[in-house]
Amino acid sequence: MDPAALEHGGRLGAARRRFPDAPAPFLDLSTGINPVPWPLPGPMPALPPAAFSRLPEPEALEALQRAAALAYGVADPGCVVASPGTQILIGLLPRLLPLRAARILGPTYAEHALAWEAAGAAVTTVTEAGALDAGEAGTAAVLCNPNNPDGRRVPAAPLLALAARLAARGGLLVVDEAFADLEPTGGPAGDGWRSLAPALPAPGLVVLRSFGKTYGLAGLRLGFALAAPGLAARLRAALGPWAVSGPALALGTAALADRGWLRAAAARLAGDTARLDRLLAAAGLRPLGGTHLFRLAEGDAAGWYERLGRAGILVRPFAARPRWLRLGLPGDAAAWDRLEAALRG
Amino acid sequence: MDPAALEHGGRLGAARRRFPDAPAPFLDLSTGINPVPWPLPGPMPALPPAAFSRLPEPEALEALQRAAALAYGVADPGCVVASPGTQILIGLLPRLLPLRAARILGPTYAEHALAWEAAGAAVTTVTEAGALDAGEAGTAAVLCNPNNPDGRRVPAAPLLALAARLAARGGLLVVDEAFADLEPTGGPAGDGWRSLAPALPAPGLVVLRSFGKTYGLAGLRLGFALAAPGLAARLRAALGPWAVSGPALALGTAALADRGWLRAAAARLAGDTARLDRLLAAAGLRPLGGTHLFRLAEGDAAGWYERLGRAGILVRPFAARPRWLRLGLPGDAAAWDRLEAALRG
Repeated sequence: MDPAALEHGGRLGAARRRFPDAPAPFLDLSTGINPVPWPLPGPMPALPPAAFSRLPEPEALEALQRAAALAYGVADPGCVVASPGTQILIGLLPRLLPLRAARILGPTYAEHALAWEAAGAAVTTVTEAGALDAGEAGTAAVLCNPNNPDGRRVPAAPLLALAARLAARGGLLVVDEAFADLEPTGGPAGDGWRSLAPALPAPGLVVLRSFGKTYGLAGLRLGFALAAPGLAARLRAALGPWAVSGPALALGTAALADRGWLRAAAARLAGDTARLDRLLAAAGLRPLGGTHLFRLAEGDAAGWYERLGRAGILVRPFAARPRWLRLGLPGDAAAWDRLEAALRG
Repeated sequence: MDPAALEHGGRLGAARRRFPDAPAPFLDLSTGINPVPWPLPGPMPALPPAAFSRLPEPEALEALQRAAALAYGVADPGCVVASPGTQILIGLLPRLLPLRAARILGPTYAEHALAWEAAGAAVTTVTEAGALDAGEAGTAAVLCNPNNPDGRRVPAAPLLALAARLAARGGLLVVDEAFADLEPTGGPAGDGWRSLAPALPAPGLVVLRSFGKTYGLAGLRLGFALAAPGLAARLRAALGPWAVSGPALALGTAALADRGWLRAAAARLAGDTARLDRLLAAAGLRPLGGTHLFRLAEGDAAGWYERLGRAGILVRPFAARPRWLRLGLPGDAAAWDRLEAALRG
């Protein structure tokens, strides 16, 4: 099997082929997706048949975009573009804005670099936020904030200044906030991190938000670009009038308005991430950070990947960082028991 | 209200504002969507929770694409690209293949011309299929076959020759077969029409197929591009690995394999279209053609649009063709009764 088949999380079919003797079903800890989907412990609302049968109405899309604006703290819903997942936006942005070069804060989610390269941009990976601006005209800067996989958080103030400088030279700052929903503003150490969504519309700034990770509904395919209204309108036109499905419109609008569920999820996940870090440390894997939805650890990653895989637990290795291992959160007591037993060896 | 708001079918919110005193609920005959969704009269299968919660697996996408290859008669599943509706493919093709000019057989579905213009192509609308090729290098030709709204069918043989000529000059033929699934091959008059899907992989040919119209599941967002494997791979890369939702993967794979349902739907709709043509003729609206999912008629379109609208029945007018009216099919006896009563005036 091609090891690259496991470079994206969530590939259980490939995991079953790689570990054919593992106990079934696999426990998938290879993604950063909330294992307790909205609206658990409440009941999932029944979807009306029209959500499947009818073309989505413009009014339903506008209601979803208003709900997202409220949830993300964006004053103008005209800045919000709903799409069938953020992945398609990551591919679309470089084609819509063919800038000649992109600087990406790495290591990070690999799809950004692939998308800018596919659109013909010269891509440079930098390791410090201060190096995202090379002072050139017509360039993009891209970061995930907080970052995947290490949870690195870049403060808001210098990023807004960077967006303004890039915009003045015809460029763009893309901030992928896929893992921002659950993070405490200001951070544990008062590090100046916060979502840039409330700063919109700011020239030269695009913020990406993911719905499926936080709400545990990744199969629904829903994500958002937040941008100044002119660029937002271009993105909407490129996606066309019915890009978001009826089920995503119905469930997304309801979930984004459910602030109580989000607070409870954040509280539960804060305890869970601390527990996971302790388990990893006890197994000799040094916690390097992460977000409320995944943790990164360093150590005998190849050995643990194998041992956990044979125990039917899929985690996320990194070909370019052979000592790194990323783990998502177990979703219930049975899953925690299984992970604890496997980490005891 | 902007009349353009009704230029796409299915906009019930706009219809309610336009006809505030109409009896509720509106009967929507403004689209070409099957009013009896798959698998009626059978029960809708329950979707597993994982269809919503998990990222779609590559194996599920491959299974859907194999089911589509079988359903459409494409020998190589590598020619099949699944997407969240064909609309997003219509927008993507001109950006991915930035040809300098496009000739479109019209009048037809307007989104094709808009997409090529947005990508910078010079768009010419021609009225005869023989005029789709101007003999120039690097151009696209586009047609809907059968056509929306008039059901015009262009025979297969000259289209395949056209695709070969365009490809030899670096161009492309796009055949939107959104309404092909239910049409009898060879046609009522043995007109030489057939789907071009079985001709793939043919150089320079892209066929678009819609899932939601035939199967009455337009809210699910599912469509396909069929193209030679190289171009198919580029389209797949542009959409990214999770463009199709879990619900669309599950229901689409099952529905495309259900050949018995499709045959029964085609038989029912053949009777329904004949019935609708008779009703329209009796109301002084001359039938101009159509497909198994909609009929076009000519006459006092503005007057009938108003009268039907006040009766709570939404149909499709054409700003550029003020004597044309397009109607979808009623889905049950109550809907037929309501339309018949309204057409009697």
